[in-house]
Amino acid sequence: MPALAIDTPAVLVDLDIAEANVRDFQSYCDRHGLALRPHIKTHKLPRLAQYQLQQGAIGITCQKITEAEAMVAGGDMRDILITYNILGAEKVARLRSLAQQVKLSVVADSMVVAQGLSAGFADAQSPLPVLVECDTGAHRCGVATPEEAAHLARDINALPGLRFAGLMTYPPTGGAAHVADWLGRAKQLIEAEGLAVPVISSGGSPDMWQAHDMPLATEYRIGTYIYNDRSLVSRGTCNWADCALTVLATVVSTPTENRAVIDAGSKVLTSDLLGLAGYGHVCDRPDLCIDQLSEEHGRITCAGPTGLKVGDQLRIVPNHACVVSNMLEHVVLMRGNHILGREPVSARGQVW
Amino acid sequence: MPALAIDTPAVLVDLDIAEANVRDFQSYCDRHGLALRPHIKTHKLPRLAQYQLQQGAIGITCQKITEAEAMVAGGDMRDILITYNILGAEKVARLRSLAQQVKLSVVADSMVVAQGLSAGFADAQSPLPVLVECDTGAHRCGVATPEEAAHLARDINALPGLRFAGLMTYPPTGGAAHVADWLGRAKQLIEAEGLAVPVISSGGSPDMWQAHDMPLATEYRIGTYIYNDRSLVSRGTCNWADCALTVLATVVSTPTENRAVIDAGSKVLTSDLLGLAGYGHVCDRPDLCIDQLSEEHGRITCAGPTGLKVGDQLRIVPNHACVVSNMLEHVVLMRGNHILGREPVSARGQVW
Repeated sequence: MPALAIDTPAVLVDLDIAEANVRDFQSYCDRHGLALRPHIKTHKLPRLAQYQLQQGAIGITCQKITEAEAMVAGGDMRDILITYNILGAEKVARLRSLAQQVKLSVVADSMVVAQGLSAGFADAQSPLPVLVECDTGAHRCGVATPEEAAHLARDINALPGLRFAGLMTYPPTGGAAHVADWLGRAKQLIEAEGLAVPVISSGGSPDMWQAHDMPLATEYRIGTYIYNDRSLVSRGTCNWADCALTVLATVVSTPTENRAVIDAGSKVLTSDLLGLAGYGHVCDRPDLCIDQLSEEHGRITCAGPTGLKVGDQLRIVPNHACVVSNMLEHVVLMRGNHILGREPVSARGQVW
Repeated sequence: MPALAIDTPAVLVDLDIAEANVRDFQSYCDRHGLALRPHIKTHKLPRLAQYQLQQGAIGITCQKITEAEAMVAGGDMRDILITYNILGAEKVARLRSLAQQVKLSVVADSMVVAQGLSAGFADAQSPLPVLVECDTGAHRCGVATPEEAAHLARDINALPGLRFAGLMTYPPTGGAAHVADWLGRAKQLIEAEGLAVPVISSGGSPDMWQAHDMPLATEYRIGTYIYNDRSLVSRGTCNWADCALTVLATVVSTPTENRAVIDAGSKVLTSDLLGLAGYGHVCDRPDLCIDQLSEEHGRITCAGPTGLKVGDQLRIVPNHACVVSNMLEHVVLMRGNHILGREPVSARGQVW
């Protein structure tokens, strides 16, 4: 690889690859009649959210209000779903302001959350659409049973300023049949109460190419697919050539024949392992292992000689792209080896 | 704990505790005739670096040029050691500019690094002091043997614009005797060549209270001690009451009796485990385990009922304070439960 004229460590985003990833999965969704609602937590860049919408996405997903605010400030976002239990009068007031600028919906998995939303929207011109978050097996947030989902849907719909708008789940990887049963049962119960279930929102990058296995879902939320990462390659979801985000690092030390140290540590690559061994994949050098990170050092070891020299540049596919793009104020946009320039990562480092 | 009027998640720093930590270790160093050079990577706040200097520190340690630049911009720093192999003409030019504003020294563990520094300082008014980094067992950077240290010391001192200034090591935890042998042998070899070894710089928070076991060291570098964290409590270095940095989070979901979810995930607490199970210590609730992090969710599990309600605030001592203070644009400064205000974290999110 020829050395790039970029000070390291740096997070590089190849737009050619990112755009191809967006187009490929949009085509898949189009073929299967599935609405696509990309999660922008992965890139946090309005220009990429805009590209996703231009290619056919029906709207975007955000995880925090600050993410949604940054997206609205940076482009025409039209339709935003925030997939998080939003609590507290200050945050709800910001939601209200957002709802005046964009078609907004949120989720709730308890009446405490719903009542807080209702207090902020009771006198709003239009009710806030609220989806019920369902725990279909990932055991994070979400109501635990279809019966609870039905109760909460009815109770939310009865609150001033709110409108029940559907079901949302972050499903467990590989559990499509169980998830479909769960959501189908909840839909049935809710419809039996006379309420419509216009949206069933599922998602997740690991199972993205099996999204059509659950025809019940009306929309699919997905984030990592735009950049891909070592975790998704290891699951067979994509190939190294599909990885749009890489970390550019420089070898700063070669203390022994079998060890080298790079200038990217946990403050760039992060300590996310996602079940993998080592902290990233060194492009074109599968024999190298990034076996230890300090804050600003990454240690590379090799069964044989590393062959690396002080000053060599390496490109690394991180284990988890979404957390790496959150670490630095800027990413460097590229097309192949052509450097387009630095882009500020909107909404990173914000409290909420 | 009474609820704090702070939007969550937030990183809180109790200045009373941080200042006491600084004073306690400064007293220890004073008693043992050891110069203290705190590492500011932990807090990245000029006001705390200034406090460390006021209490008797001889200077500060930085890991990146941007950290040093932010400290110089934010206060009177006097004396900075950057403990990193600095490579590349652009970075060396910034070093040169820093050297005009503050007493600056750096490290090198190879002639490639030293030659780069020399190229930038050959025509400087005063030579740049360079310490030789030694690998005394931590197996990250550093020359591998005392003999190599002596050769590099001599070669650095012969380069235009540089002056050999001593030895620096990041020692392995618990290895004082071996480290002392290593450095003693290197010092002997270097002095035999007619060079003085004015500085021997060691450090590390885990062994901080045993720093006097290595009388050969002239100065001690230490970062985490100002905040402390779960890792240092687990090693017996400090107690929970000495932990100045906590993450304030809100319970956003209680899906089952034994599970709760908070609004602090890996984008605040980070995935650093440092050999521990779980992602932090919930203050006053040792029965709770933060067993899983998503980007914006932290999952809490408990053998019995959690007793938590949606909306409850929790304070969490993270596994590793130095990476958590790097995650958000601001920390909230406190004294006890009195909120002083938000302080921007200088130099976070900078490339280098």
